[in-house]
Amino acid sequence: MDIETFPNPAPGRDYVIQHVADEFTSLCPKTGHPDFGTIVLTYVPGNVCVELKAYKLYLQDFRTKGIFYEAVTNSIFDEMWALMNPRWMRLETIWRGRGGIRSNMIAENADPQYEGPIPPYFS
Amino acid sequence: MDIETFPNPAPGRDYVIQHVADEFTSLCPKTGHPDFGTIVLTYVPGNVCVELKAYKLYLQDFRTKGIFYEAVTNSIFDEMWALMNPRWMRLETIWRGRGGIRSNMIAENADPQYEGPIPPYFS
Amino acid sequence: MDIETFPNPAPGRDYVIQHVADEFTSLCPKTGHPDFGTIVLTYVPGNVCVELKAYKLYLQDFRTKGIFYEAVTNSIFDEMWALMNPRWMRLETIWRGRGGIRSNMIAENADPQYEGPIPPYFS
Amino acid sequence: MDIETFPNPAPGRDYVIQHVADEFTSLCPKTGHPDFGTIVLTYVPGNVCVELKAYKLYLQDFRTKGIFYEAVTNSIFDEMWALMNPRWMRLETIWRGRGGIRSNMIAENADPQYEGPIPPYFS
Amino acid sequence: MDIETFPNPAPGRDYVIQHVADEFTSLCPKTGHPDFGTIVLTYVPGNVCVELKAYKLYLQDFRTKGIFYEAVTNSIFDEMWALMNPRWMRLETIWRGRGGIRSNMIAENADPQYEGPIPPYFS
Amino acid sequence: MDIETFPNPAPGRDYVIQHVADEFTSLCPKTGHPDFGTIVLTYVPGNVCVELKAYKLYLQDFRTKGIFYEAVTNSIFDEMWALMNPRWMRLETIWRGRGGIRSNMIAENADPQYEGPIPPYFS
Amino acid sequence: MDIETFPNPAPGRDYVIQHVADEFTSLCPKTGHPDFGTIVLTYVPGNVCVELKAYKLYLQDFRTKGIFYEAVTNSIFDEMWALMNPRWMRLETIWRGRGGIRSNMIAENADPQYEGPIPPYFS
Amino acid sequence: MDIETFPNPAPGRDYVIQHVADEFTSLCPKTGHPDFGTIVLTYVPGNVCVELKAYKLYLQDFRTKGIFYEAVTNSIFDEMWALMNPRWMRLETIWRGRGGIRSNMIAENADPQYEGPIPPYFS
Amino acid sequence: MDIETFPNPAPGRDYVIQHVADEFTSLCPKTGHPDFGTIVLTYVPGNVCVELKAYKLYLQDFRTKGIFYEAVTNSIFDEMWALMNPRWMRLETIWRGRGGIRSNMIAENADPQYEGPIPPYFS
Amino acid sequence: MDIETFPNPAPGRDYVIQHVADEFTSLCPKTGHPDFGTIVLTYVPGNVCVELKAYKLYLQDFRTKGIFYEAVTNSIFDEMWALMNPRWMRLETIWRGRGGIRSNMIAENADPQYEGPIPPYFS
Repeated sequence: MDIETFPNPAPGRDYVIQHVADEFTSLCPKTGHPDFGTIVLTYVPGNVCVELKAYKLYLQDFRTKGIFYEAVTNSIFDEMWALMNPRWMRLETIWRGRGGIRSNMIAENADPQYEGPIPPYFS
Repeated sequence: MDIETFPNPAPGRDYVIQHVADEFTSLCPKTGHPDFGTIVLTYVPGNVCVELKAYKLYLQDFRTKGIFYEAVTNSIFDEMWALMNPRWMRLETIWRGRGGIRSNMIAENADPQYEGPIPPYFS
Repeated sequence: MDIETFPNPAPGRDYVIQHVADEFTSLCPKTGHPDFGTIVLTYVPGNVCVELKAYKLYLQDFRTKGIFYEAVTNSIFDEMWALMNPRWMRLETIWRGRGGIRSNMIAENADPQYEGPIPPYFS
Repeated sequence: MDIETFPNPAPGRDYVIQHVADEFTSLCPKTGHPDFGTIVLTYVPGNVCVELKAYKLYLQDFRTKGIFYEAVTNSIFDEMWALMNPRWMRLETIWRGRGGIRSNMIAENADPQYEGPIPPYFS
Repeated sequence: MDIETFPNPAPGRDYVIQHVADEFTSLCPKTGHPDFGTIVLTYVPGNVCVELKAYKLYLQDFRTKGIFYEAVTNSIFDEMWALMNPRWMRLETIWRGRGGIRSNMIAENADPQYEGPIPPYFS
Repeated sequence: MDIETFPNPAPGRDYVIQHVADEFTSLCPKTGHPDFGTIVLTYVPGNVCVELKAYKLYLQDFRTKGIFYEAVTNSIFDEMWALMNPRWMRLETIWRGRGGIRSNMIAENADPQYEGPIPPYFS
Repeated sequence: MDIETFPNPAPGRDYVIQHVADEFTSLCPKTGHPDFGTIVLTYVPGNVCVELKAYKLYLQDFRTKGIFYEAVTNSIFDEMWALMNPRWMRLETIWRGRGGIRSNMIAENADPQYEGPIPPYFS
Repeated sequence: MDIETFPNPAPGRDYVIQHVADEFTSLCPKTGHPDFGTIVLTYVPGNVCVELKAYKLYLQDFRTKGIFYEAVTNSIFDEMWALMNPRWMRLETIWRGRGGIRSNMIAENADPQYEGPIPPYFS
Repeated sequence: MDIETFPNPAPGRDYVIQHVADEFTSLCPKTGHPDFGTIVLTYVPGNVCVELKAYKLYLQDFRTKGIFYEAVTNSIFDEMWALMNPRWMRLETIWRGRGGIRSNMIAENADPQYEGPIPPYFS
Repeated sequence: MDIETFPNPAPGRDYVIQHVADEFTSLCPKTGHPDFGTIVLTYVPGNVCVELKAYKLYLQDFRTKGIFYEAVTNSIFDEMWALMNPRWMRLETIWRGRGGIRSNMIAENADPQYEGPIPPYFS
C-alpha cells in the first residue's frame, strides 16, 4: 500500500490525532445498495502520520466496493496500522442503519510498551 | 434456536460490534397494551457473529408476545449468548415509559479469560 | 364506526385540540415488515370530541394491519372526520423511514363556514 | 373571582405579555392520577395585568382538582379573560401525555377592534 | 422516463406527500470528488404518486454522475413533475458543503388552478 | 411498609434495573409551595424487584407531603433498600430549582460482597 | 438622553439590525432579588443607529435599578425609539423566571409610512 | 468587480439558491480585533449565478479588512446585486458577539416585477 | 463567617448534594464590567449542610464585588469548606466568556479518610 | 517568549483552569486557505497563570501564520508549558474540517510528582 505519510513532527510526545470522516459510503455486497457511515480514526503517531488528503482519497475508494460493515472496520484498521505502525490506534465506524437497526463497530490496538493516554470513545 | 450466524471475519482481534434497534415493540402481559423501546446489543465476537437480517426478524417476533421488560432483557441476552458464545456481551433495553415512569435495563457478561476493551454504556 | 365521543365542553369557542401519538405501528402490505411513525391529529371540535382512550385503542388496531402510508393517512382522516364532523381538522403522519428515505404526509379540511385559527404544522 | 391585578403601565401601546408555567399539575377526574403540563398565557393587556404571584397561586389551586385537559384550558382562559378583559389573549396547554399519547390545546380570542400584533404559537 | 408510479389513492383531496432522502450522493463534475446531501421532495399528487422504491433507485443513479448542485435540483424537479404532473410540487436540496460553504436550493411550481395548502419549508 | 414486589426473574445474574420518574412533586415544608423533580432509582436486584405500578403510587404519595430535598432522597433510598434488599442501589433526585438555584442529590449503597457492574450516573 | 449614535451607513435601504444581549440583569422592586434575562432589540434604522458599546453601557445601568419586567420592556423601547426614531422597531425581553413561571414581553412599533420587511420573532 | 459568474442553468424558473458561509472573519476597524460570523446569501438568479469558489475567495478577502458589521452586510449585498442582478436577494449576517451582545443583520431587495417565492429567514 | 447551616439529616451515609446557580454575576476588577457564570457546588456533607437560601444570598453578595475568576473559585471553595467541613467537596465555575474566550475552573478537596463516591464533573 | 503571566493566587491547591477559544484561525501552509478551530487549554497552575488578554493576543497571532494542525497543537502546548511550567497541562484542538474530514488533536503532560485531579476531555 502506498498511501502518503509524513514524519511525525513531535515524535518525543504521546499525543492524539483524530480524523472524523462523516461522508463515507460503500456498497452492501449482498444487495448492492449503498451504505453510509462515519469513520473515526484515532491514533498516537509513531514515526509517521497519514497525510490527510491521501487518507481522504483512500476512503473515497470504498465508494464502489461491495463490503460488509465488519470488513470495512477491520480493513481500514489493518491498513492504517500497517501503514503507520502507531503506538496506539482505534477505529470506530458508525453506520446510518437499514430496516430499523443501526450498527457501530470499534477496533483498537496498542504497542505493548505503550503507556500514554487513552482518549474517550467518539460516540 | 436456529438464528443464522456467520464466521467472525477477524477472530484474532477483540473488537466490538453494536446493533441498535430503535423500533422494538412487544406487549405488556398484564394489560395487553403495546410497549415500545430500543434494544442495544453490544458484543465482542468469538467464533461467530449474528446475521443482521436474522437478528432483525428475531426481534420482530416479540411484536405479538406478552412479556415484561425484565424478561425481554434477560431472554434476548440469554439467547444471543447461547447462539454466539461471545467473549463479552452487554444488552441494554431502553423503554418509552408508561404513566410517567420510563425504565432501562442492563445485562452484561464476559468470558472469564476476556481482557479486551469494555465500551461505554449506550445511554 | 362506534369510537366513543363526548360532547364538546366549550361549543361556543373555536379552540384547538391536538393529540400526538408517538408509538404508532402498522405493517407494510408489500413486505409484511412493521412500519413505525407518529400520528398527529389536530382539530377544532364541533359538537363532539373523540374520547382519548378510545382513540388510542383505535390507533392500536393498526398494529396488525397491512396498509400503506398514504392509506393510513387518508383512513384516519376520513374516519375521524366522519366521527366528529369537526369545524377544521388536520392529520399529519411522520414515518421513521426505510432504506434511507423517510416520509411525511399531511391531510387537512375545513367546514366552508370556518373562520377560526389555523395552528402551525406539527413538524 | 378576586385574583390581584395591577394597572397596565403602558396602556397606550399594544404590547405582549407571556407567562410560561412549566410546573402545572392537576388530577385526572376519571382515574385520580396526576396530570402534568405547561400552561402558556399570552395576552395584550387592556386596563389591567394579572399580578404574577397571584397568578401562580391561582395555578397551584389546580393541584387538588379533578379536571380534564379541555376544561383546564377553557377554565383558565375564561377566568383570565373575565379578570383582565384584555385586547387579545391566547392560552396554550401542553401535556406530558399518558399511554403513548400527549395532547396540546389552544384557545384564543380578541376584542373585535383589536388590530395589534399576533405573536407566534409557543410550541 | 419509466419510473414506476401508482394511482393516487385519494384523488378527491389536496393532501401533501413528502419524501426525505438523507443519503444522496453525486459527483462534482469539476473535481470528481463526491458531494453529499439531503433531497426533500414534497408534492400534492394529481392522478399518480411515484412508487417509493423506484424513487429510491432513481436517486441512487446519481451516485456515479458528475453534476452540479443546481442541475441536481432542477433535474429531479423536472423529471418528477413530468412523471407525476402533480397539483403542486417543491424540491429542496440541502448540501453538506465544501471549503466552509454549504448550499441549499429550492424549486417549486403549482398547477395554475391549485388552491390547496402550501406546507412550510423543510429546513 | 407493604409495597408490592415480585421475585427477581433472573436471580443468577447481576443486572441493572432503572426507573426514571419525571413527574415527581412534593411540598416545601417551609413555604408550602410545590417542588418538582425527577427521581431515578437504579439497582441490581437481589431476591425481589419492586412492582412498577406500586412504586408509582408510592411516589405519588409525596404529592401532599411537606419534605425537604435531602429527606426525599434519603427516605426513598432507605425504604427501597429495606423493601428489596438489593445487591447495589443508587437514588438520584434532580430538582427544577427555585430562585435561580437547582439542586441534585445522589445516595448509593452496595452489599459488601457485591462485585458486579456499576452503571454511570443518570445525569 | 445622550446615548451615542452614528449615522445610518445605508439610509437608502430598509434593512434590519438586531442586538441580542444575553447578560441583562436588574433588580425586582418588590423583593430586591436580582432578575436575569435576554434583551433583543431589532430595528430598521432611520437616520441614525445606536452605537453598540454605548448601548451595552446603557443596559448595564439597569444592574442596580429596581424595576418590573413590564417597565424594563417599555422603558428600553421608549428610550431607543426616542433616541433613533427608526422606521420600525421591536423589543423582546425573555426572563429566566422565578418560582416556576418564566415571562416574555414584546413591544413593537412602526412609522406609519413603513412598508419594508418585518423579521420573525426572536424566540 | 470581476468575480466569476456562470449562466443560470434554469432561467425559466424562479428558484432559490442559498450559500451559508460559517467561517467568515473580518477585523473591527475600531479595535483591530477579529470579528467572526456567518454570512448567508440567498437569491433567485436572473441571467447569472455567482461561481462558488470565486465567492469563497471574495469572502476570504475580508480577513484583513477593518470594517463594521453594518458595512459588511451592505457591501456584500451591493456587490452581489451589482454582479448578478438577481430577481430577488437577501443577505443575512450572524455575528458571534463581543462583550455579551451578539448582532444580526438582514438586507433584502427584489426586482419590482418579481412575484416568485420568498424563502424563510435563515435563523 | 455566619452563613446559616442545618444538621446533616443522614450523617451515617456518604451522599452527594449539588447546588447549581446559573445566575451568578460579579464585576471584573480591571474593567468594572460585569462577569456572568454558573457556580456548581457539589459536596458530601459531614455534620452540617449549608442552608439553601443563605447560600443564595451569599452568592448574591458577589454582584457588587470586583474579583477575578480564579479568586471567585478559590474564595467560595474556601468559605464553604470552612463553613461545613465536608467529607468531600468540589467547586466548578463556568463563565460566559469575553472576547472569544470562555473559561472554566475546578477546585476539589477531600477529607483524607474519605472513601465514598466521587460524582462526575458537572460539564 | 514574553507573554504576560500573574502569580498563582492559590499555589497551595491543585485546581484546574480552562480557557476555551472558539474563534481560532490560522492558514493552511499548503493551500493558503484559512483553517478555523477551537483551542482548549486546560492546566493545573504551578507558580504562575497566563494572563487572559495576553493569551488571547498570542492566539490571534496565528491569524497570518501558515501552519499545520499538528504544529499548532504542539507549538501552543510547548510554549504554554515553557511559559508557565504547570503541574499538569492538556491542549485540545478541534478543527471545523475540510473536504468532509474534520480533525481533533490532544497533547498532555504532567509533572512527575503530580497526583492531583485529571479533568475529563473537553469533547
